[in-house]
Amino acid sequence: MRDPGEFPPSSKDTKMPIERRHVGKRLSEAVVFTPGGERLVYLAGQVADDPKADMKSQTAQVLAAIDRLLGEVGSDKTRILSATLYLPDMRDFATLNALWEAWVVPGHTPARATVQAALAGPDYKVEIQIVATAPA
Amino acid sequence: MRDPGEFPPSSKDTKMPIERRHVGKRLSEAVVFTPGGERLVYLAGQVADDPKADMKSQTAQVLAAIDRLLGEVGSDKTRILSATLYLPDMRDFATLNALWEAWVVPGHTPARATVQAALAGPDYKVEIQIVATAPA
Amino acid sequence: MRDPGEFPPSSKDTKMPIERRHVGKRLSEAVVFTPGGERLVYLAGQVADDPKADMKSQTAQVLAAIDRLLGEVGSDKTRILSATLYLPDMRDFATLNALWEAWVVPGHTPARATVQAALAGPDYKVEIQIVATAPA
Repeated sequence: MRDPGEFPPSSKDTKMPIERRHVGKRLSEAVVFTPGGERLVYLAGQVADDPKADMKSQTAQVLAAIDRLLGEVGSDKTRILSATLYLPDMRDFATLNALWEAWVVPGHTPARATVQAALAGPDYKVEIQIVATAPA
Repeated sequence: MRDPGEFPPSSKDTKMPIERRHVGKRLSEAVVFTPGGERLVYLAGQVADDPKADMKSQTAQVLAAIDRLLGEVGSDKTRILSATLYLPDMRDFATLNALWEAWVVPGHTPARATVQAALAGPDYKVEIQIVATAPA
Repeated sequence: MRDPGEFPPSSKDTKMPIERRHVGKRLSEAVVFTPGGERLVYLAGQVADDPKADMKSQTAQVLAAIDRLLGEVGSDKTRILSATLYLPDMRDFATLNALWEAWVVPGHTPARATVQAALAGPDYKVEIQIVATAPA
């Protein structure tokens, strides 16, 4: 049997039915959610309110929007199951990761994928799509 | 406490365990699903049956395929949680949005992300990936 | 009513609460999951450990990583609900499909979408993002 105190490679939060495996500072390789009573939260792909801002500012705006939306439904960033990050320019990857790693909560990093993709407007520098859970 | 009659920014359907926040004509910023008894539905990325058709026709084919598949499992487009839209050419974004907004049901718009990506065949103009719920 | 023995277009596994529709050798058009008691599993986007390897080897590495991670949480590839495949070069699509189709279990193919996207490192040739279920 696994040891709940093991960290990494496995983290089981006693307060919520989420177990994370191979927990890194950027992502967990697997995130397991037991739905009993909890809610699933899907956020729209978040982009910056101000697309003329630079990469750092756009990323901060996106992360703040995620915090705000999760908070509205009683969730928070420790409950993110999955994050898909879209970057038009992969040269922004290091900047994104630095801000992301400062934002996520150690031990609660989500499953994450990052791919290059142009976004709906030419000035957007990052878009993030979130699946999370919230208490009932 | 939230008011179920509030719309926007929040919509809670009395018939199904889905709550939507910041409901717009195109998307909701957050969609919350309480799994008790309901089923989760994942559709394959849908592309047009006829890849030689134009953007309008391809989009109509994709939306019809989604309607058909959801119908087969007892679901429908009011129960979509999340939609990821892939467009090879972002110049088709306005056309896509017009058709999409005419198709979605007001008050039941899903969390949505749209990014630019080339698709499996060079003629495909749009692909849509859906997560929905269905009654038990 | 549907016939559980129908295959294709519908497959309902008696051992797990997953029903698949229009089951093909590559994907199922719809995968329906009834959450009662099962767990949901989100994997990080998997890329090859060795990005200098060729497409065949990278794909094999990615599929092995998925097998390994699913195994760690008591799941396996017959329980995949959804797979999103990212390919930087769509000319690798046929190679990917051949390896994928040899890997998936007939009758248990997931909902799948494949799009072209550059990945975090220039040498990566494929990334796969998985949502699966696991027994309680």
